[in-house]
Amino acid sequence: MNELEYIRSLAQQQHQWQTPVHQGSLLMGPGDDCAVIRKCGSRVQLLSMDTLVEAVHFDRCFHPPELLGRKVISVNVSDIAAMGGIPTLVLLSAGLPPGFDANWVLAFNQGLLEACQHYNCSLIGGDTVASPGGFSFTITILGEMEESAVLYRDRAREGDTVFVSGFLGLSAGGLALLKAGFSAREPQFAELISQHLNPTARVQLGAALANSGLVHAMMDSSDGLATDLAHICSASQLGAQILAEQLPISDNLREAARLCRADPLDWALRGGEDFELIFTAPPQAAAALRELGNDCSVQIHAIGVMDRGEGLRLLEQDGVACCETFLTHQGYDHFRRVEEN
Amino acid sequence: MNELEYIRSLAQQQHQWQTPVHQGSLLMGPGDDCAVIRKCGSRVQLLSMDTLVEAVHFDRCFHPPELLGRKVISVNVSDIAAMGGIPTLVLLSAGLPPGFDANWVLAFNQGLLEACQHYNCSLIGGDTVASPGGFSFTITILGEMEESAVLYRDRAREGDTVFVSGFLGLSAGGLALLKAGFSAREPQFAELISQHLNPTARVQLGAALANSGLVHAMMDSSDGLATDLAHICSASQLGAQILAEQLPISDNLREAARLCRADPLDWALRGGEDFELIFTAPPQAAAALRELGNDCSVQIHAIGVMDRGEGLRLLEQDGVACCETFLTHQGYDHFRRVEEN
Repeated sequence: MNELEYIRSLAQQQHQWQTPVHQGSLLMGPGDDCAVIRKCGSRVQLLSMDTLVEAVHFDRCFHPPELLGRKVISVNVSDIAAMGGIPTLVLLSAGLPPGFDANWVLAFNQGLLEACQHYNCSLIGGDTVASPGGFSFTITILGEMEESAVLYRDRAREGDTVFVSGFLGLSAGGLALLKAGFSAREPQFAELISQHLNPTARVQLGAALANSGLVHAMMDSSDGLATDLAHICSASQLGAQILAEQLPISDNLREAARLCRADPLDWALRGGEDFELIFTAPPQAAAALRELGNDCSVQIHAIGVMDRGEGLRLLEQDGVACCETFLTHQGYDHFRRVEEN
Repeated sequence: MNELEYIRSLAQQQHQWQTPVHQGSLLMGPGDDCAVIRKCGSRVQLLSMDTLVEAVHFDRCFHPPELLGRKVISVNVSDIAAMGGIPTLVLLSAGLPPGFDANWVLAFNQGLLEACQHYNCSLIGGDTVASPGGFSFTITILGEMEESAVLYRDRAREGDTVFVSGFLGLSAGGLALLKAGFSAREPQFAELISQHLNPTARVQLGAALANSGLVHAMMDSSDGLATDLAHICSASQLGAQILAEQLPISDNLREAARLCRADPLDWALRGGEDFELIFTAPPQAAAALRELGNDCSVQIHAIGVMDRGEGLRLLEQDGVACCETFLTHQGYDHFRRVEEN
């Protein structure tokens, strides 16, 4: 059993049970970036939970504690942004290994509290436990917004254009550079490395997109475009075709990939941890959405289209040759070419 | 730096920062069993978070997975009960070790979902991560109640009687029996062992106490009477004297202590994980509180008094001799005799 199978089995087991009375206020349970519950009048509350485990999600060898503290918050805030909400409250459960370094922890806390301040949310509680397997940080984040503005991932429509904010693959490129011994002191790589160590959640953009009324479905690119867009596809019971040449891949990412002997397209599709927003809207909304991105100092890129085809497909054009690659719904591990002409 | 120092340093660091705007709705932040925020009208929302780590909080050698799943929920529900609230929603972050046993996990989930059903709350989301150091389960629980009924730990008054529900030390006794190779099949020990493996949160009693208007301060006995009552003392800026002979110690606990060569008084004071309610109220409320306990099928015991003395003191009477033991505010590690006559 892997993690995905665990989640599925838990969901299946849950179906046996009667619905508790409080579920009347539950607008979205498991299966989106946040759970959504009615709060008061037209307001809803958003809830999400994310754990970051040492040696799985972060490497203390090159992750400064202040930036890790910030990242733990940003990763969670991004789930709120992915629904279009505003973060409000945070709970932290910290797992501390035996004999942990007090200075490291003070710096981590400093970064975490700075990030709470940056996103205008408050740490209101949590837990502290001993952790035999290294540091482990679980955050529960709450957010708020108008019920009518919430953007779910299951509402994409056939013919919608697929958009993405910012650039893809930066975090994966930054991680590869760090592992190869590069640092943020090298100017052309500062952005990539910073995107890995200290990403920013797109709160302002997410809220603007939600309030625009132009967007049908949205989520954040935490697991990589291929996996995340596949979630929009399966939730919306649609397929999608994305165009390789439209993917926002920066020159610095290409240069990093050359140095690290990696494929920048692979980073863009499967890198994860970009914390950009992936969203779908009618093609005619493109100009207005780009304008809205400008207001938030973020470029918006159209990268594909939602259709009735099966799953997620990548179209690569090379002169007259055209190649369609099938990206499975699991996305992360599997890469299978199904058609070439 | 230990866990307590970590919590204190985090609280100190937090004071540097400006108060986010959302704190207007925050009635209680860190420092009680739950955070309390305004929800709608006179209703408040309660939030709490607890992590249980393998080899720290549970031992899979003798803890059946179904019961552990139940306990993970009950431990968290107890924090809601300790404020007088009703649990509503649950988020779970599960840390799964490499090559984990799928059957164990399915049984754990079954117990967890059964407990959600029992307490009439819904699992609405969470996270699943790889965990290098064994299983780890973090729950965030939400609850609800009327703002005017919330019972905090910092409202005890001088002269209040200290009450406790049920019996103390059962979980510690049960754990000692399990470690000594006893099982729940031995009738006189079934209750102790069950209290450790599968405790029940006092939701009905907690809500009845909160709604009675008789109680001034309340919390649950998750860390042991000495530590938990010391929290009420320090939060309320009072001391307390408890009477050893009034502590509810069952005959079965004394028998278990004899077999395990342990001190039943020590289990009652410092055992923890009883998930009973500790509360303070005026002495004249005692009869009404006992009646209210009867309605919930729980015995209520008066065990001491809140006073202006320093810290928490245990009075032991042995014929004409009287001995007062000072239990420090940290409670857990330290035991110091200050007076004997």
